[in-house]
Amino acid sequence: MYDIEAVARRFFDKSVTDRERAIFEGAITLGATYHQFIGTPICRDERIVKALEEAISKSMELQPHKEEVKVRINLDMIKEEKRHPYDYVTLQGRHLDIKVVSRYGKVKATLRMRYVPELDYTLMYVERIEENIC
Amino acid sequence: MYDIEAVARRFFDKSVTDRERAIFEGAITLGATYHQFIGTPICRDERIVKALEEAISKSMELQPHKEEVKVRINLDMIKEEKRHPYDYVTLQGRHLDIKVVSRYGKVKATLRMRYVPELDYTLMYVERIEENIC
Amino acid sequence: MYDIEAVARRFFDKSVTDRERAIFEGAITLGATYHQFIGTPICRDERIVKALEEAISKSMELQPHKEEVKVRINLDMIKEEKRHPYDYVTLQGRHLDIKVVSRYGKVKATLRMRYVPELDYTLMYVERIEENIC
Amino acid sequence: MYDIEAVARRFFDKSVTDRERAIFEGAITLGATYHQFIGTPICRDERIVKALEEAISKSMELQPHKEEVKVRINLDMIKEEKRHPYDYVTLQGRHLDIKVVSRYGKVKATLRMRYVPELDYTLMYVERIEENIC
Repeated sequence: MYDIEAVARRFFDKSVTDRERAIFEGAITLGATYHQFIGTPICRDERIVKALEEAISKSMELQPHKEEVKVRINLDMIKEEKRHPYDYVTLQGRHLDIKVVSRYGKVKATLRMRYVPELDYTLMYVERIEENIC
Repeated sequence: MYDIEAVARRFFDKSVTDRERAIFEGAITLGATYHQFIGTPICRDERIVKALEEAISKSMELQPHKEEVKVRINLDMIKEEKRHPYDYVTLQGRHLDIKVVSRYGKVKATLRMRYVPELDYTLMYVERIEENIC
Repeated sequence: MYDIEAVARRFFDKSVTDRERAIFEGAITLGATYHQFIGTPICRDERIVKALEEAISKSMELQPHKEEVKVRINLDMIKEEKRHPYDYVTLQGRHLDIKVVSRYGKVKATLRMRYVPELDYTLMYVERIEENIC
Repeated sequence: MYDIEAVARRFFDKSVTDRERAIFEGAITLGATYHQFIGTPICRDERIVKALEEAISKSMELQPHKEEVKVRINLDMIKEEKRHPYDYVTLQGRHLDIKVVSRYGKVKATLRMRYVPELDYTLMYVERIEENIC
């Protein structure tokens, strides 16, 4: 296969740095993960929750420039929620704790999405940027 | 928990039979599965495909009145498709072969969704209905 | 175009009646609508809510054997919910009231999905079946 | 409402610039839009396509720090595709041309997603960054 990145880069604004590109690629995956999987039926059974965490992680890691995608579904929160008449729940943003590590050039960006009680909001943010990674 | 089904049934047209109800419940899950997971990144790696099949099956089985949900992602079809520049594919309807077994009263309905080459269409259909199940 | 239905019908269990087929087709659309649009950002602005209702209805009516799809987003419920820090909400099942009218042969099935306070659940059900429709 | 941004900012790596934040916020919406709406039934009817473009734009603009979201569904591409037996299509990434304008502080970032024939891929990229916007 030819150098896809060389072609792709031509579409980007020339001023975009490797830091910015790493953040860009990671943020796409945060937004994608939320909107792809919200609504999926889940329950209190740990094996089902683990299977879903695993599948989401592995599939979202396939998006370009990803080093790692970690997904945790907050089982404790689900256990505390009102018991649903048919005994399952649909996955919501606040149940999810997602870490996306993207890499571009020598920059590694760690992005995060998790429910922040203080805001009562599922916040997406840039947790850490590491430069000069070998 | 009180008898949820007794309450739910009051909302249904009185003429609805157990056969019809079993079909209804299964068809919801066929439509739901397609529209929940289409767009998920996948690839030729068998372990990733298996993890996703497993997670989809297990989560969709949580919907009411399901006996079994079997999901097969057609890896051969994906392997034959044009190689994508970033080497992954987004899941499409034609990649999926889904079997939903729903049950209501003594009726078991087996519903199916799969790509039908003759129609060049991903068809959903009622494959089998069994009555007087114990 | 050739008779697609004649081909499709060959995949169905021979015992499936027109009533059952109408219910089957409608239920697919109920499940599909829920899982396609849950997670969409919405707000208290009536024009945005109307635009989304319109788009969902029109697009889901394209699925086979649909006579009508009506979607109402419960704006009053959204207005009563806790004000979100960034002042928008993500669409959830309980916000939706969906009516799907499907038709097969001389049978018209009206299917419904709406939040039922008594169950504290978003119930999908068969509201009405009309036979011998001209 | 209190200053949500002041609280949110505390979660971000301190080195994140306004440029990076604008890119971050826009990229979330690109990933979100793709994965929320892929799979939606569409057709060659211009009114339906317009209704969907409008609804997607308006709803995704509700995400934080968005100035504008423009969505164009490539009707010409859909018209050229093989006629589907039931005469509708499910929305795919390559049908979409999305422009997201996000703003943070004095920085405006224009992000884009569109099908690039040269890559045979639906590419997301940073089209333009403007600084010192009033």
